[in-house]
Amino acid sequence: MKIKVAILGSTGYVGNELVRILSQHEKVELIFLGSKTYSQKAYFEVYPNAYKITNLPCGDDEFEKISKEADLIFTATPQGFCASLMNESVLKNTKIIDLSADFRLKDASVYEQWYKLEHKAKDFLDEAIYGLCEVHRDKIKKARLIANPGCYTTCSILSLYPLVKEGLVDINSIIIDAKSGVSGAGRSEKVDNLFCEVNESIKAYGLTNHRHTPEIEEQLSYAAGKDITLQFTPHLVPMQRGILTTIYANLCKASEAKKIREIYEQYYKNEYFIRLLPEGIYPQTRFVKGTNFVDINFIYDERTKRLIVLGAIDNLIKGAAGQAVQNMNLLFGYDENLGLKAMGIL
Amino acid sequence: MKIKVAILGSTGYVGNELVRILSQHEKVELIFLGSKTYSQKAYFEVYPNAYKITNLPCGDDEFEKISKEADLIFTATPQGFCASLMNESVLKNTKIIDLSADFRLKDASVYEQWYKLEHKAKDFLDEAIYGLCEVHRDKIKKARLIANPGCYTTCSILSLYPLVKEGLVDINSIIIDAKSGVSGAGRSEKVDNLFCEVNESIKAYGLTNHRHTPEIEEQLSYAAGKDITLQFTPHLVPMQRGILTTIYANLCKASEAKKIREIYEQYYKNEYFIRLLPEGIYPQTRFVKGTNFVDINFIYDERTKRLIVLGAIDNLIKGAAGQAVQNMNLLFGYDENLGLKAMGIL
Amino acid sequence: MKIKVAILGSTGYVGNELVRILSQHEKVELIFLGSKTYSQKAYFEVYPNAYKITNLPCGDDEFEKISKEADLIFTATPQGFCASLMNESVLKNTKIIDLSADFRLKDASVYEQWYKLEHKAKDFLDEAIYGLCEVHRDKIKKARLIANPGCYTTCSILSLYPLVKEGLVDINSIIIDAKSGVSGAGRSEKVDNLFCEVNESIKAYGLTNHRHTPEIEEQLSYAAGKDITLQFTPHLVPMQRGILTTIYANLCKASEAKKIREIYEQYYKNEYFIRLLPEGIYPQTRFVKGTNFVDINFIYDERTKRLIVLGAIDNLIKGAAGQAVQNMNLLFGYDENLGLKAMGIL
Amino acid sequence: MKIKVAILGSTGYVGNELVRILSQHEKVELIFLGSKTYSQKAYFEVYPNAYKITNLPCGDDEFEKISKEADLIFTATPQGFCASLMNESVLKNTKIIDLSADFRLKDASVYEQWYKLEHKAKDFLDEAIYGLCEVHRDKIKKARLIANPGCYTTCSILSLYPLVKEGLVDINSIIIDAKSGVSGAGRSEKVDNLFCEVNESIKAYGLTNHRHTPEIEEQLSYAAGKDITLQFTPHLVPMQRGILTTIYANLCKASEAKKIREIYEQYYKNEYFIRLLPEGIYPQTRFVKGTNFVDINFIYDERTKRLIVLGAIDNLIKGAAGQAVQNMNLLFGYDENLGLKAMGIL
Repeated sequence: MKIKVAILGSTGYVGNELVRILSQHEKVELIFLGSKTYSQKAYFEVYPNAYKITNLPCGDDEFEKISKEADLIFTATPQGFCASLMNESVLKNTKIIDLSADFRLKDASVYEQWYKLEHKAKDFLDEAIYGLCEVHRDKIKKARLIANPGCYTTCSILSLYPLVKEGLVDINSIIIDAKSGVSGAGRSEKVDNLFCEVNESIKAYGLTNHRHTPEIEEQLSYAAGKDITLQFTPHLVPMQRGILTTIYANLCKASEAKKIREIYEQYYKNEYFIRLLPEGIYPQTRFVKGTNFVDINFIYDERTKRLIVLGAIDNLIKGAAGQAVQNMNLLFGYDENLGLKAMGIL
Repeated sequence: MKIKVAILGSTGYVGNELVRILSQHEKVELIFLGSKTYSQKAYFEVYPNAYKITNLPCGDDEFEKISKEADLIFTATPQGFCASLMNESVLKNTKIIDLSADFRLKDASVYEQWYKLEHKAKDFLDEAIYGLCEVHRDKIKKARLIANPGCYTTCSILSLYPLVKEGLVDINSIIIDAKSGVSGAGRSEKVDNLFCEVNESIKAYGLTNHRHTPEIEEQLSYAAGKDITLQFTPHLVPMQRGILTTIYANLCKASEAKKIREIYEQYYKNEYFIRLLPEGIYPQTRFVKGTNFVDINFIYDERTKRLIVLGAIDNLIKGAAGQAVQNMNLLFGYDENLGLKAMGIL
Repeated sequence: MKIKVAILGSTGYVGNELVRILSQHEKVELIFLGSKTYSQKAYFEVYPNAYKITNLPCGDDEFEKISKEADLIFTATPQGFCASLMNESVLKNTKIIDLSADFRLKDASVYEQWYKLEHKAKDFLDEAIYGLCEVHRDKIKKARLIANPGCYTTCSILSLYPLVKEGLVDINSIIIDAKSGVSGAGRSEKVDNLFCEVNESIKAYGLTNHRHTPEIEEQLSYAAGKDITLQFTPHLVPMQRGILTTIYANLCKASEAKKIREIYEQYYKNEYFIRLLPEGIYPQTRFVKGTNFVDINFIYDERTKRLIVLGAIDNLIKGAAGQAVQNMNLLFGYDENLGLKAMGIL
Repeated sequence: MKIKVAILGSTGYVGNELVRILSQHEKVELIFLGSKTYSQKAYFEVYPNAYKITNLPCGDDEFEKISKEADLIFTATPQGFCASLMNESVLKNTKIIDLSADFRLKDASVYEQWYKLEHKAKDFLDEAIYGLCEVHRDKIKKARLIANPGCYTTCSILSLYPLVKEGLVDINSIIIDAKSGVSGAGRSEKVDNLFCEVNESIKAYGLTNHRHTPEIEEQLSYAAGKDITLQFTPHLVPMQRGILTTIYANLCKASEAKKIREIYEQYYKNEYFIRLLPEGIYPQTRFVKGTNFVDINFIYDERTKRLIVLGAIDNLIKGAAGQAVQNMNLLFGYDENLGLKAMGIL
């Protein structure tokens, strides 16, 4: 028995990853590939990597109609789209995993402040479950509407979660210096994303105001049991995929440095997708490329009394499509890693 | 029931691809990962992408001993290695898929001329089957020793095979202008392979004397039923994976231009791994990356009366590890595409 | 004494190269930087590499007005723009070096067929001089309107010119397999030029119909003294700059293979910008990056009786802005290499 | 009148930059290009970008002999080389600009601890001048032996110098998260520097123990008038050139945030090579590529009360060869920017 699955926004980079992963998933039948831009073209005309894999055409995004046919809809659509169409009858028909930011922040005013958009479905914010599987697994299993976390967010939170939850790090000292490949910027036709603007260069962007900041802060505040304000600085790296977060924090007590590895192991030893690397081997994005893994390691600097935590993910997989499929697996009672066991491709 | 598989030369780039593909293959148990360079290290210390995927250590390459334990050995080792150890008792114990060039050319003197190496196992040249599955499928199924084709070779031969076999192209006119990513050069510590030597540049190399030339000529000569001498010019492209071959040829009769598509379809319509693209969509290496596909298309130039055929593969997969696993599937009676159905990862 | 120079289309990639080269040129005062898109912004806001180098704003392209103030105008503007504004009064005021294709082809109907544009200044086609300095030096010195050659064209023609002129190669056998970096596609906001579409891939494009084909054919036909039809196939390489042309041709008489080097030397030994490389060293684009050089070498294949000529340029310099400045130097009587002597930057 | 200049270590990446810059420098005659590895080859055989630029052969590094012929020797050689050959007679013959780390740290024991090398010329540590031109200009002019600063060091110190000197930032809070292109690793034949290991990935390295740490600390401690211990974390970015430093620090007094720009201007307004960018335009490495500029800007985050300073250089130019030539210009009384005025090449 396969579930019927639709993807809206299937011709973005995250959409293409969903098609790739789901077309190999033994429990999934893809029934609809939505794309406003390429409506009526065959999907493989837009993305020839799908040739002989799927014959589906790109279709107009008719949300309500599709909700009646699909057991699950992934919305890999621009901010605001999913919220603008959300209503009770849709959620009675189908389950939704939204890969936009529409349902990630519980407080609509925070959303509106950082995204400069009116929130069109405030009534559903309470119900939406933040789909960070390793943290909210039990709630996800029973959800109708899942807010799939952001890419930077996933890497940042999972890197810090055990330490914040256990109160090891000074929550006022957290600095996340993040580096991302270009696919994170999506497939839009902007000068900034042209090959010749990005290649052979590195820059910081979204300085002090990147939209993933409140999402990281909200989730880590839940873990800490108190409000966290932190520094988040993303950088654009001339590569296609991958996020590396270099995180600096002070320990509350220097003496607890030796407990860090133990605490990570306690939280993550049974997590299939989190790999706490052996001592001395640090995350590199190339080793998680094509996978749903999060690679984590840390070092405590005796000279500066500062902790450095490094985390790496594939932004399009654990940071988007892969985590969405992991959420799907939880929602439908499949093995959490079904269709997601690929080893990194160099 | 799984077969026991060993990989010699497992820490090269092709070796890592074999580990990646085989660790996901439902009929395979990896029992040995050979590596002279990294002997005794855990494999994941050399390639952290394998962390939590395999705990095998790197072992010394004891060919004869391993042949007793393994149902199949892949040798992804330097030229000359496999031939130097080949003997009847090894082949009585196990099957061998050799990814080096040692058994590709039937004539040892041609091997010795192009590779500047003495051939140490001439007695086995007759028995060895050239493992280009789409051409030699039936012989492969019954083989003990398979010579896995070269990367450029695979792409070049499959792009031209139906046309040469059917006598459509003037065999004296063939020019193959090939472009490859850098992984084709392997993992050796040479200045020429350094990032700063390769990045942001393109060059031709092996001009008039690249070793894949006689291999392409030999196989296409079998197809043509007469000796072919052709032009083969490889180029190094600043990317990791992928081969594109741009092939120029004159037709024997211009009037046959309209038969070309039909002939390709006749030969390839049932081939899972060969995708003759729809008219007007031409191969790009990114659309076969991570796959065992060969993408092919062509255009006939009315102005110049010349045919241009384009072929694209992932050099590490259809050009090496993937085709080797395809050969394994044939050898052991599995579905030919088992473990090889991945869609291209962008 | 400096000449007053204006650049229209100054915010494209070629425009930025003109600014870079001319801001260091001792005989030039930049007086105007035109840019429709960024009008009124400071130039350094668009291109911070110009910060503290020029304080000029981007201005609207008022051709006629500028022609009264400038001794020379470079038009690095879209096809059709320069022709649409050309008239006698402009040319009485100033000299024009047009970097678009508007005045490169003598036959307006060929232009209209390949560019799908009506030609708006047919009366000036006769007067315009094709600015390939090494071939048309004397005419350039006396011109009012110079058609700066295309990038692929420059590399292709200069690689073949002596051989075609001397009648050494069979003019029906010429195949130019060209490879270019992405800057050749300009700075337009197209999906095809996005980092994630270009990076880690290679493709052919413009198959059988690229617009530089008739330009190469026209110029080589003049050299040969008869009409040439040739094969030209461009490829897109994931790098910023550089063109490599791999050219295949048959010799008219195989016995003349030994004369080739001598003939190249005869034509090019006094050309500052053409470097016939020593035997066995072949062009790589990285060695001409940042320079106005053309690197050329060749090999004659005894097996196939075919000649392979390799040429490399920096497409934005010898293929555009640098050659334009070389033309300027000729026009105004400066040393031909003034401001253009930079050694390649790796 | 030109000075006679020798370069030892001329076939490394920094060496090639020295050749490039100096071959265009109107006051320099290159008389010797040393290279142990390529001794007796023509320099252009190793680096064809130098073809027709220099005919010098690569020579053995005979320090003492060369010191008698050269007015100035640049040593772009491995750590320990320059110190091992230093003596009074050499310095009586010639001036030395050493691009290795041998004379950067005043305390030999710190050198020996971080570099794991015995220091062979401790007697010359006092005399050596740290060649950070913007800070030590006057001493440089009178020196015999100049220690050219490290690449990360140059970018880090110049980004922070005015703030530390003026006591604005809390010296215990400084975190430098640095990102570098691959040329910084030099041209050695190591697996870690291969294209396929570096491309499409980012990693941190030298965590808590990178050798540039004590150099930054020493120089900033002089500025602060007290000992500074800071966090320095370098990352390897898949690009050829460029360093970006993202620096986090707390202000001593939040109220002084508005003074920051003014202080930078006070220190740097007359510095040709330091470009404090306009508000809102942040450094990107591509805009300093090919130049001797340092681009700097900052932002004060009102939410976190933290200052972020960004600095960018071309690691091979302002971080090595360019700064060395700037030192040469000071030493010999030339304009400080002679031969170094190039605008960034995209």
